[in-house]
Parts: sequence; C-alpha cells; structure tokens
Amino acid sequence: MKATVYVTIKENVLDPQGTAVQGALHSLGFNEVGKVRIGKYLELQLDTNDKNEAEARIKAMCEKLLANTVVEDYRFELEG
Amino acid sequence: MKATVYVTIKENVLDPQGTAVQGALHSLGFNEVGKVRIGKYLELQLDTNDKNEAEARIKAMCEKLLANTVVEDYRFELEG
Repeated sequence: MKATVYVTIKENVLDPQGTAVQGALHSLGFNEVGKVRIGKYLELQLDTNDKNEAEARIKAMCEKLLANTVVEDYRFELEG
Repeated sequence: MKATVYVTIKENVLDPQGTAVQGALHSLGFNEVGKVRIGKYLELQLDTNDKNEAEARIKAMCEKLLANTVVEDYRFELEG
C-alpha cells in the first residue's frame, strides 16, 4: 500500500521560505506570482493491506514525526 | 488562479532525506514502512485568468527555479 502525505504550514503562520521563493520569482520576471506557500510531500510504501490500520498508523507517524502539528497541518491519501 | 506544484526526486536518484525519515520511523516502531521519498509541495497564487498562459509560465518557473531538472521531476495542477 502506498501513502502520500502532504505537510503544509498553517494558514496563519509565516512562511519565510515561501516569501523567499516569491521574491526570487519576481526577480526572474514572474511578476504575476502572489502568495507562495511551501510544504512537504512524502511518498511512503507500507507493508500492509489493511486500509483502516494503515490510516491509523499514518496518522500516528504524522503526529509523532512527519508534521509539527503546532505550526503545520497534514493530510494523506492511501492507494493500492 | 491557484497553482499547486509537486517537485519529486527522480526514481533513480538517491534520497538521503527519505532514508533518514525511514530510519526514524523504524526506530519509533513503524516497522511496516518501506521506501520513503520526500519532495516539495508548493502553492502559488497567480494574478492571471488565462489557463494556457498560466501553464506556460508555471512550466518556465519550474524549469528556471522551482525544480532542479537534472535530479528532480515536477508536475503541477491549476485551479480557479
């Protein structure tokens, strides 16, 4: 089973990396670019076929390691 | 218009960050985790309503700044 996890910075938290990328795009001439937010994208192979169990385990992984839930949100998709 | 860009490391390129996360998950007891691949996830607001133009511009941004096309792949979605 394959899990895809998206970790994003919460809406009301500053994203300095996004601001830097926005500035770099502007200086390259991409002036139509407004707000930029940057997050993480993870693909995990899981050695299980039980979708409910996989959901619970991925949730635990996100809470414990993959996301800092103070300043980040996460969501995930399972397939296969 | 909102663009979502996914930048991932090419399949045949080593991903040391992914390997580190895999090791950390194993040491936390998540032994069912196999390969982990980590990428970037970007959300950009674009001040344009022309979808074709936006596609061409996002492609140029990816080629020039957002992705290192030697070792990374990218894909994007447009909405709004």
